[in-house]
This record gives sequence, C-alpha cells and structure tokens, in this order.
Amino acid sequence: MSTMPEVNPARLLTSIADFAAIGATPAGGVNRQALSVEDRTARRLLAERAFARGFTVFQDEAANLFLRRDGRDATLPPLLIGSHLDSQPTGGRYDGALGTLSAFEVLEALADAGVETDRAIEVVAFTNEEGSRFSPGCMGSMAFAGAGNLSDWRRARATDGALLADELAATLQALPEARMRPIGHAISAFVELHIEQGPVLEREDVPIGVVTAVQGTKWLEIAFSGEAAHAGTTPLEFRKDPMGAAAAAIARIQGDIMPADPAARLTVGRITAEPGSINVIPSRVSFTVDIRHPDAAALAAMDRRVREECEAAGARWGCETAIELRVDMAPGRFAPEVTAAIEETCRALAIRSRPMVSGAFHDALFVGRVAPAAMIFVPCRNGISHNEAEFVSDAHIIAGARILLGVALRLSAA
Amino acid sequence: MSTMPEVNPARLLTSIADFAAIGATPAGGVNRQALSVEDRTARRLLAERAFARGFTVFQDEAANLFLRRDGRDATLPPLLIGSHLDSQPTGGRYDGALGTLSAFEVLEALADAGVETDRAIEVVAFTNEEGSRFSPGCMGSMAFAGAGNLSDWRRARATDGALLADELAATLQALPEARMRPIGHAISAFVELHIEQGPVLEREDVPIGVVTAVQGTKWLEIAFSGEAAHAGTTPLEFRKDPMGAAAAAIARIQGDIMPADPAARLTVGRITAEPGSINVIPSRVSFTVDIRHPDAAALAAMDRRVREECEAAGARWGCETAIELRVDMAPGRFAPEVTAAIEETCRALAIRSRPMVSGAFHDALFVGRVAPAAMIFVPCRNGISHNEAEFVSDAHIIAGARILLGVALRLSAA
Repeated sequence: MSTMPEVNPARLLTSIADFAAIGATPAGGVNRQALSVEDRTARRLLAERAFARGFTVFQDEAANLFLRRDGRDATLPPLLIGSHLDSQPTGGRYDGALGTLSAFEVLEALADAGVETDRAIEVVAFTNEEGSRFSPGCMGSMAFAGAGNLSDWRRARATDGALLADELAATLQALPEARMRPIGHAISAFVELHIEQGPVLEREDVPIGVVTAVQGTKWLEIAFSGEAAHAGTTPLEFRKDPMGAAAAAIARIQGDIMPADPAARLTVGRITAEPGSINVIPSRVSFTVDIRHPDAAALAAMDRRVREECEAAGARWGCETAIELRVDMAPGRFAPEVTAAIEETCRALAIRSRPMVSGAFHDALFVGRVAPAAMIFVPCRNGISHNEAEFVSDAHIIAGARILLGVALRLSAA
Repeated sequence: MSTMPEVNPARLLTSIADFAAIGATPAGGVNRQALSVEDRTARRLLAERAFARGFTVFQDEAANLFLRRDGRDATLPPLLIGSHLDSQPTGGRYDGALGTLSAFEVLEALADAGVETDRAIEVVAFTNEEGSRFSPGCMGSMAFAGAGNLSDWRRARATDGALLADELAATLQALPEARMRPIGHAISAFVELHIEQGPVLEREDVPIGVVTAVQGTKWLEIAFSGEAAHAGTTPLEFRKDPMGAAAAAIARIQGDIMPADPAARLTVGRITAEPGSINVIPSRVSFTVDIRHPDAAALAAMDRRVREECEAAGARWGCETAIELRVDMAPGRFAPEVTAAIEETCRALAIRSRPMVSGAFHDALFVGRVAPAAMIFVPCRNGISHNEAEFVSDAHIIAGARILLGVALRLSAA
C-alpha cells in the first residue's frame, strides 16, 4: 500500500542544519575537510540515519559511502544519487552536503510513502571531492570510475602531514558496521544535485538548472622574457618589453574569445612583473590563463589561439615566450536520457528550469564516464561558493529535492 | 706665456681610479652615498688636489662644493662645470664622478698650459644627486637654483636614521679649510659631462651626445576595481574584470603612444592582481605608468591620453578606475648657446656627436632654470648604470674631457 511520495521540507532543512553543525565555523560556514575527524563524524551520522530506516550501508576502498534502499529486482543495477560531504577549509554548508542530504531525503520520502521501486536506489557520498586537504579533488569518484590511480594517491600527504593511506584506513574503520564492497560496482545512472556556484540561475530567477555538460579546463602559464632597462633612457626600438607583449596578448585573447563564443570562459587571474619598479622596463612578465569550454574541439582551438597570440606578441616585442600547460581536464557531456528525465520532471512539477553547462568540476563528471549521468543545479546567493557566506534559500532547497525525487522515480523504473 | 691646453689622459684615468677606491664595493662598483663618511672622504681628496693647484675651495649651506680657478676679470660671473660625487648604494664608478673629475682635469689642463681665461671657471660637486640615502635627489642643485626648500629637507631622515641637518653640518665641518659662500651665486653658464645611462650612443657608435633637453616625467598609478568571481562559472556578461580593463588600457597606450612619437617614453614597470588565483577573476588590478617627454605640452597630452584610455577600459569592463599622479617633473630645455658651443667643439676636434634628450634627471636640469646650461653625454656599455657593472671606455672618457675642455675655453671667454 503506497501513497504519492513527497519530500518532507522540515526534515530536510533540519538535516542540513544538523550536518552544518559538524565542523561549523564561527562565521557560519563549515570546515569538514576530506577524511578528517569531522568528515568521519558526518559519515557516521548519515550511516546511523540509514540504519534507522533499514537501508544498507556500504563502503569501498576509496571510502566512498553508499546507503542503499533495495528495489523490487535485485538483479538490476541500482540508480545512484548523491554528491559529497567534505568541504573546503572555510567552505559553505551547501556545497556537496545539499546534494547528499537531498538524496537521502529522497530515500526517506520513498520509504515514508511505502513506494517500491524496480531498481534499488543508492545514495552516495564520494570521498574528497574538494581536494583541499589531499590532492587531487574528485578522488573518490575518479577511483569509482577507474580514472586515476588510488595506489599512487595513497602516498599523498596532507598539508597537516597525514598520509592518505592512513586517513583512508581510519575513516573506513570508524564505520565498522558498513559492508565493504568492490570499488566501481555497476549502476544504471547517476544524478547529482548541487549548488550552481555561479550567478546565472539567481540573476535569471530560474530555480533549476539542468546541467548538460561540464566544461573542459586547461590552465596555461605564460612567461615573456625581455630585457630590463631604464624607462627614461631607452627608446622604443631598443626595448624588449615583456609587459608590452603580455598586455597585447591578454587584450587580444580577452577581447576576442569570449565575445565570439558564449560557451567559452577565459580568465587571467595572476600576473607578475619583475623586477617590478616604476621606472624600469620589466625583464620578465608571467601570467596564468584559465580556459574552459564544454566542447573538446573548441577548447583545443582556444588553447591554440592563446598560444598563437602569445607567440606573436612575444615576437613583436622582442621577447622569448614560454608556455606551460599546468592542468588539462577534458570536458564531459552528460547523458541525454538523464537530462531529459530532469526536464520532464520540471515540466511535470511546473518548476521552471534552463539547460546549462557547469563551469566547475564535479563528481558527476567522472561517474559520467562509466554510466549515464547528469546534474541538477539550484541557485546560490550572488554565485558565492567555497566561502562561509554561501547561501541557498529554503524554497530552492525544497524545489531541488522535489525534482531529485521525481527524477529518481523515473530512473528507478525498469 | 701659455701653450695650447690639453687633457692629460693618464692623470684623468688615475683620478677616476683614485675616487673609485673611496667606497669601493667587492663587485667593482662604488657605495658612496650622499653626506656619508665616504662622500666626505671623496670631497676632501678633491679639495686637497684643488689646494695643491692653488685653486680656491668654497662650500655653500647645501654642502655643494666649488673649486675655483680665477679668470682675468673678477667682476664676470664664473663658468660652472661639474656634476656630483655621491653614488647609489650599489652604484658605478662613473655616474657623477666622471663629470666632476673631468671638470677638474679641465682646470688642471688650463693651469698646466698657463692659460688665463676671461672668466673664472669653477668645478662643482653638487650634493645628493642620487637621492638614495636622503630624498629628494638633485637636492644640492635644486637648492642652488632656488627650487625646493632646504629648510624642509633638513628634517629628512636617512634609511639609517641619520638626520639630514646633522649630516650636512658634519660634512661642512669635515672641510674647514673651505670658504663658506651664500647659496646660488651668479654664474655665466653650466656644463655637465655625464654618462648617457642609455644605449643610444654605444649602439650608434657616436662618442659624444649633445644634450638639448631633459624629459619631463610623470608617474601615474592606475587601479581598476571589479568583482572577484569563479573563472569557470561566470559568463562574460556577469564579469567585472579589472584584468580585462588593465590589459586593454596598457595594450592601447603601449601600442599607440611611442610608435607615433619617437620622443615619447611610456613604461609599465609594475602590475599586481588580487587575489591572484589562477581560477578567480581578480577583484583588483593595479599598475604604474611612467611617461616622459621633452615637451611639456606633449607630456600633458600623453597624460590625458593615458587617463582617457584607462577610464574607457574601466568602463568597458564594468570596473571603477582610480588614477593617482605620484611624480610630476616638468621638462627642461637646455640653452642653445651652450649646446652650440658643444657642437662647435665637436666639429673643431673632429669628434662625432649627435643631439639627444636626456631620459634621466640631472643637476643641469635645475641649474638650467637660473643660467644657460647643457650637458655632454658619453657612451656607457650596454646602457647600464646604477649598477656596479657600469663601464665607460678610456677612449670615451678622454674624448669627453677634451670636449669639455674645448667648451670651457669657448664659454669662459668674455
């Protein structure tokens, strides 16, 4: 005997407040870094709530945490929903936690209503998404998807000196009631609810973003080397001015690339001139370029364009140009069947949505390599994230959880 | 009974070596900062050599040092030749000393030859040209020309804590044999020999520069304030990017101003982006602009153009633009009758010369406000100065001194 399942707003908001208390900072944020004592406390609280509802709790060797509500057919791979529980050192209470706790609310709502789904639904909290204590971020989801090498990462040291292998083992041991399972078990699909971490939904007053892709990212470091000389006594024809080269190159790439392609992102966040005196032509100017695009070919073209403009500007100003690629992350395109399920749910519930591309990495990027995946974004105030001031309105929290529940119902059907 | 006066190359080169030993640094340069013990030692050595030749030694309240060889008519104002003896903390052995010691060689050559000039000729070593220990530089020549306020400067403290008033008094007292004279006595003209401190003469293989003007200089500090935001999640239309504004403004002013006007100099020597993260759009970018021009109206036009381009770029990128003027030094134009005397001497001695503008300040800039003045430049290797590696060839030293002698003969005639 089942009724129509409904999200319980009070329970979800209380749950978010409960978890925000674990690692709470005086400024209202959260310091719950991956595999820390606070992270273990949060994992235990979630596991205990799962046990209380009769769900099964699993861990894998990357300490990814799974909370399973069985379905009608145990032979079908489960639907996976969730996000992560770790935070930045001065993080907000919604980044990661909102998606994990909304997914757990979906399980509870289904249990409350006595709904039996065809497939099992599993809630996941992936390990170390933030990467602030141990590098790289998205470690748990990468290991789950067979990307990257957990054996190598085990030797990583935290800034506080802790060894990843030790912290992983201690985290797993802190939850002995959980069953160990092999990493990377089959799933039917993955849906991750997350805050947007950008300004678009709020400014357009749209409560739900249907995330169709995650941008690819490349980080370049450019250095022009010229010749330091006296600002007053050196005529133009004797100058080898790396500042001239840098300004020309940055102006060209910033002036052209984003205006020509709304999906492109290009940021110069850091620049340094040496020796850095008012009346000395610099000997060296270096800067960073962060380029992102949802399309791999377009991202490669941006990379070529940046290199060409820099080489040309360096040559024009008589400088040597050095370009290094620091980060190279391919774009991910989410599964149309999953984004379609999200859009249909929005229509069915009469909640406005818009398709969008994620500018930041997420666990779903990696899980999407082994299973159909997509994400649901909700607005956050002023686009602020990775910051104790991070804020999501109650209405948007509830709307997001309702969409996730609807999607879970659709995708757990055989 | 007189003969044709001639510079004594061995004596001049020995003199330069003698003075380079006072405050000598291990790397072959000189640390003889204004009013230091080393500066006093150098002044005493020069004064003793003057006494030995029967010249008269004067000091004024700014501790400017004068060595006078009388002329035929004591009622005529003397011709002034010379430069300064103080150095940068890691300075070279030629900056200042070359002009002062070449001027003293002129007096000795005239005395050797028994030449009686119509006017007296005085050699000057102006106090604190470099400004590295006490600010401002060109203090002695400014005081001599009635520019600036010596009473205010007396309260200045050196980086080592010494009070300028005390160091001035101690320096004057260290040479009690010198006569005190009122500051700013009448002179007929001033000629300063100096190293170019730039690359032009050496690269064009011209031994003498006839300096017709000193550029005016303005130092501007520009700051664009925008809004820090996530590099990946912030579309162009939401960006208030001060790096975009800075690069556009710098590219415009560097791309246009110097190519359009060979006399213009524009340098961006310092730039900073905050917070300075690869994946964060900066909240603030600030940079310096050093502009120079020999013509006051052209310098003012450059200043306006820089401000306009910065305001426009700031507005285009949604940033606030702040512009501050840090230094404002008017250009100086040297006296045609003095530059003509230098050119005629070069022709008479068959030494190649070219007219040029000084990119750096010099004492002659200020003395030129109260008397006809000009400068003679000689090449220095690679344009390097304010550096222990500063170097001038013997041939260029001798050529410079010969020109100074010829000019002194012309300008000391009634």
